[in-house]
Amino acid sequence: MAPVEGGGATGGTLHKVNFAAPRSFAVAFKSDLKETFFPDDPFHDFKGKPLPIKAKKALQYFVPIFEWLPKYTRKLFMYDLLAGITIASLAIPQGISYAKLANIPPIIGLYSSFVPPLIYSVFGSSKHLAVGTVAASSLIIAATIEAKVNPNENPQLYLNLVFTATLISGVTELILGVFRLGILVDFLSHSTITGFMGGTATLICLQQLKGIFGLKHFTTHTDMVSVIRVILKNRKEIRWESTVVGVIFLVFLQFTRFVKQKKPKLFWVSAVAPMAVVVTGCVFAYVAHAEKHGIAIVGDLKKGINPSSLRNLDFDPKYISAPIQAGLVTAMIALAEGIAIGRSFAIMENQQIDGNKEMIAFGLMNIIGSVTSCYLTTGPFSKTAVNYNAGCKTQMANVVMSICMMLTLFFLAPLFSYTPLVALSAIIMSAMLGLIEYEKAYHLYKTDKFDFIICMAAFFGVAFISMDVGLMLSVGLALVRALLYIARPASSKLGNIPDTSLYRDVEQYPGATDIPNTLILQLGSPIYFANSGYLRERILRWVRDEKAKKAADGDDVEYVLLDFGGVTSIDITGVETLVEIRRSLEVKEIKVVIVNPRLEVMEKLIVTGFIEKIGKERVFLSIADAIEGCKFSLTRLKDCGTEER
Amino acid sequence: MAPVEGGGATGGTLHKVNFAAPRSFAVAFKSDLKETFFPDDPFHDFKGKPLPIKAKKALQYFVPIFEWLPKYTRKLFMYDLLAGITIASLAIPQGISYAKLANIPPIIGLYSSFVPPLIYSVFGSSKHLAVGTVAASSLIIAATIEAKVNPNENPQLYLNLVFTATLISGVTELILGVFRLGILVDFLSHSTITGFMGGTATLICLQQLKGIFGLKHFTTHTDMVSVIRVILKNRKEIRWESTVVGVIFLVFLQFTRFVKQKKPKLFWVSAVAPMAVVVTGCVFAYVAHAEKHGIAIVGDLKKGINPSSLRNLDFDPKYISAPIQAGLVTAMIALAEGIAIGRSFAIMENQQIDGNKEMIAFGLMNIIGSVTSCYLTTGPFSKTAVNYNAGCKTQMANVVMSICMMLTLFFLAPLFSYTPLVALSAIIMSAMLGLIEYEKAYHLYKTDKFDFIICMAAFFGVAFISMDVGLMLSVGLALVRALLYIARPASSKLGNIPDTSLYRDVEQYPGATDIPNTLILQLGSPIYFANSGYLRERILRWVRDEKAKKAADGDDVEYVLLDFGGVTSIDITGVETLVEIRRSLEVKEIKVVIVNPRLEVMEKLIVTGFIEKIGKERVFLSIADAIEGCKFSLTRLKDCGTEER
Repeated sequence: MAPVEGGGATGGTLHKVNFAAPRSFAVAFKSDLKETFFPDDPFHDFKGKPLPIKAKKALQYFVPIFEWLPKYTRKLFMYDLLAGITIASLAIPQGISYAKLANIPPIIGLYSSFVPPLIYSVFGSSKHLAVGTVAASSLIIAATIEAKVNPNENPQLYLNLVFTATLISGVTELILGVFRLGILVDFLSHSTITGFMGGTATLICLQQLKGIFGLKHFTTHTDMVSVIRVILKNRKEIRWESTVVGVIFLVFLQFTRFVKQKKPKLFWVSAVAPMAVVVTGCVFAYVAHAEKHGIAIVGDLKKGINPSSLRNLDFDPKYISAPIQAGLVTAMIALAEGIAIGRSFAIMENQQIDGNKEMIAFGLMNIIGSVTSCYLTTGPFSKTAVNYNAGCKTQMANVVMSICMMLTLFFLAPLFSYTPLVALSAIIMSAMLGLIEYEKAYHLYKTDKFDFIICMAAFFGVAFISMDVGLMLSVGLALVRALLYIARPASSKLGNIPDTSLYRDVEQYPGATDIPNTLILQLGSPIYFANSGYLRERILRWVRDEKAKKAADGDDVEYVLLDFGGVTSIDITGVETLVEIRRSLEVKEIKVVIVNPRLEVMEKLIVTGFIEKIGKERVFLSIADAIEGCKFSLTRLKDCGTEER
Repeated sequence: MAPVEGGGATGGTLHKVNFAAPRSFAVAFKSDLKETFFPDDPFHDFKGKPLPIKAKKALQYFVPIFEWLPKYTRKLFMYDLLAGITIASLAIPQGISYAKLANIPPIIGLYSSFVPPLIYSVFGSSKHLAVGTVAASSLIIAATIEAKVNPNENPQLYLNLVFTATLISGVTELILGVFRLGILVDFLSHSTITGFMGGTATLICLQQLKGIFGLKHFTTHTDMVSVIRVILKNRKEIRWESTVVGVIFLVFLQFTRFVKQKKPKLFWVSAVAPMAVVVTGCVFAYVAHAEKHGIAIVGDLKKGINPSSLRNLDFDPKYISAPIQAGLVTAMIALAEGIAIGRSFAIMENQQIDGNKEMIAFGLMNIIGSVTSCYLTTGPFSKTAVNYNAGCKTQMANVVMSICMMLTLFFLAPLFSYTPLVALSAIIMSAMLGLIEYEKAYHLYKTDKFDFIICMAAFFGVAFISMDVGLMLSVGLALVRALLYIARPASSKLGNIPDTSLYRDVEQYPGATDIPNTLILQLGSPIYFANSGYLRERILRWVRDEKAKKAADGDDVEYVLLDFGGVTSIDITGVETLVEIRRSLEVKEIKVVIVNPRLEVMEKLIVTGFIEKIGKERVFLSIADAIEGCKFSLTRLKDCGTEER
């Protein structure tokens, strides 16, 4: 016989099960809402404080500059100054490069590193995040808007639509943040993001072949097949001068990345390398009249800071679908990236960043950016890492970068007009190569084949079809898997671990022994419409198999104990299924016993009348209690020869 | 101090955790596949039998007539004869009525009760199912095909497309059955089905007002607003003669249903009532020359059995989208209904019906039906219930019905041409009123508000927009809910129930006491990408709250015990989150301890190296073991003054 679980419970004194009346709908609903949208309890600091302090805390919560600026010191500034200059030196080449990638004038890329960082330093809550433009979003904007307007034929209209897309993206981010829809990002798994980033990086690398090879004609399609085809078609246009310079730059940049990897202390080598490439490129182009040798330069960078672009916003119904699509997709990707950054730095620095609040800051940044000649900005991971490594302490680093950019715009901008396009291509390509995570994909392959498939779906979908199809394909697969998880929850037969009162899966612990007359099943995960049919089949199969097994030993199944300890919730269909299971088993003269339902499940079982139907005496707090209880009623049954209720 | 769980484990002798090497991918994948597609283990009878018996069993499995016919007796036939005649008397009025609903010649409805039942009796496995046409599918076919072809202007083309839709539906059913996609039906919850059936029944009732009022002009739209508008517009066409007759018939039919409800033994009263209405109507129409008084009759029913309709099948690309859509939707609904019937009768009779196998039978029935002038048939719930109540014993009842229909087609068909349309409308309306389950909706409202919303979404979506939109809306909501379930799994803090070694939710069992230095958290449901971000936030919040609470008592949190007993599976993102949680907590000098991971979870934790990372000594078989283990290392720590590994 199994010993009794719980020292105090022997000989029929069983532990009391809590059958308290369920919470009201309002209470349960409020609790559910809180868990859904405020799992991190952002206002926990406010509780029980007097009103003025609450108001101050609220202001500091929503506008974080009020929190950090009063405490700011000169010593902190020295750190932020260095970090700010470092990221500014990265922002100039990246700004120009990504603007080229988005097919907009390069100066817009520089404008975009001036206004948005200022806005972020007021509203943003991350101390380490560096604001800037990103390659993936630039490419998405370009690919979506090019489908409607040719940037070469009608550059002004194209640019206006880019500003409009930026506005829509900002508004979307603001809305997502205010309504705390960060939950949507939960559905982008690491595998999807790995695959998507890898695929996008591959595409962007391929696009850079235009710059490296110095091609004049290229395709607006982004998929691999089209790009490779157009390169093969135009292979006669390839200029060796450009190619040689490009390869040299690329090798240099990759080497600095390698140095950083080997000696993390030398991170600044790779941080200033792009600037070094641009400066070298400019000098080279100026001295060698590179343009005459087939090496195109940026050209045309005017002095002066951001003009207003309020009048450029274009809501013409003929074109509006493109900026809307681009805005929504980029907002979702910014959301994913923003929250991922929050998470990473929360771990590194043991501080907590609320992804939803970050989205509000991003939203304001892009809304204001869209009317000051900036295009989409966010907190790119790579730039943020440089900022962190350069020793930034507060959001002031963004202000420093912004001032550097202002000075550049006022005085140095024309100098950068000599930047060779091939240098920009090398910079983008080098950045993108770092985003293709072979090792991670291999790790997925080794540990979880389905996660690997989800990752590959994103990668190949993006590389061979299009970015949104790839993303949707991968998210769709991940959702199918999630639904399968819940549609086919594991159940297992428990046995007694000898000399203990523990009951564990007999498959996992082969030494666990059966209990006479009894089958103990452990259920898991929520029980509801999507899995209740399966559970019913599965439980009946367990009973059938166990009956056959026990029959061989001259025993029979008289009780089925369902361990509900792992069941987190149940819906109407689930309860109806329990009723069905009970009826099916009663026909076979098997009694169903429920063990340890959790709070929510118990509430639902009470309110639907299930507990009343099976009787409170059939519900136990632990498996040992249940076995004890069944043994008792079994003995009584045999003694009296009558059927108990 | 808490007593130790498990009598044998005292003073540091902890129970062994199973760290066996994970199963190979192939083994795990095979097991997953089986659970996904063969949860009921349909071939369990075959195991270990010699080959000839296996072959015989396989034949009997796939063609059930070989199983039941050899054992058939004259006594069984007497039961089936009575049941067969009863359902035939229902099949005649229903066949004509639903054919009118589908806007096809009424004779097709009679044909459809001749061939398909014969096919079913060979391939079908349910002893009680009665084959016939159904109202909902008839309306869906009509609504979908009318959108392409007007049945009044081009009746032949319309009819051809109906046959094509039947073929496509049959092929779809066959495919769904062969590939065991019954799993799709799991995503139609009871709430969705209740709402959808109620909404469809309401629509069909409204459509019948045309017949009851004797209107000549009507709309092809099915939504409530259009139908009510057209009735108000054409209110001058309303014929009082028709209305009076219709109301009398309807009251009579409803009364017989009421009788059945009060005295279930008198079920046959309601079963033969439709036939009585038709016969009375025919006599009345013949005697009173009803047609001259504004009461339209069916007219034109030719003698003779089903002609071939092979040449009628029409795959013209111009129209093919309509039959494809109708075929797919009706196949899905037939699947849902077929499996629901299997389930209901499995409970009543303690027999088991494989929904996927039933689909194969339905598929063959409709494929053959589509080339023998039959339109869509399935196993309608109402007719099956009549069959069951009439005492049918085997599939022979369908054969009897089929023979009755053949005799009707050969000799009696012309007599039914006098059937007044108003009688048919009354029959349909009466059947539909029984499908609107007010009580069930009220029950949902009382017990689960979200299930109620899902149900109402289906009802109002179907009633006011269209059938497929309503269905999709409701399924979509149910999926969102399912995803929220898994995105926000419940976690709870456990305390020790005094004088026992049980650990239960402190919210549910307020008497449970805290353990010094320790926070015990119970997780539940799978941990993976969609909920891992949430879990991380939630666990950190638990720790924060517990630290604050314990600090008030001069205590601190040194160990966080994560009870994995309820976690059914984990993916890569989930494992990465565990790593993050551990790192965040280690910074705060809190140690993470894992308790009782289940088989699949343990495998994943081992293969990803997580167990190695935290150390096997941090994994325990039970909470009591873990507390014992932590206490031991805590003492050692204090004694030696050194940090343990």
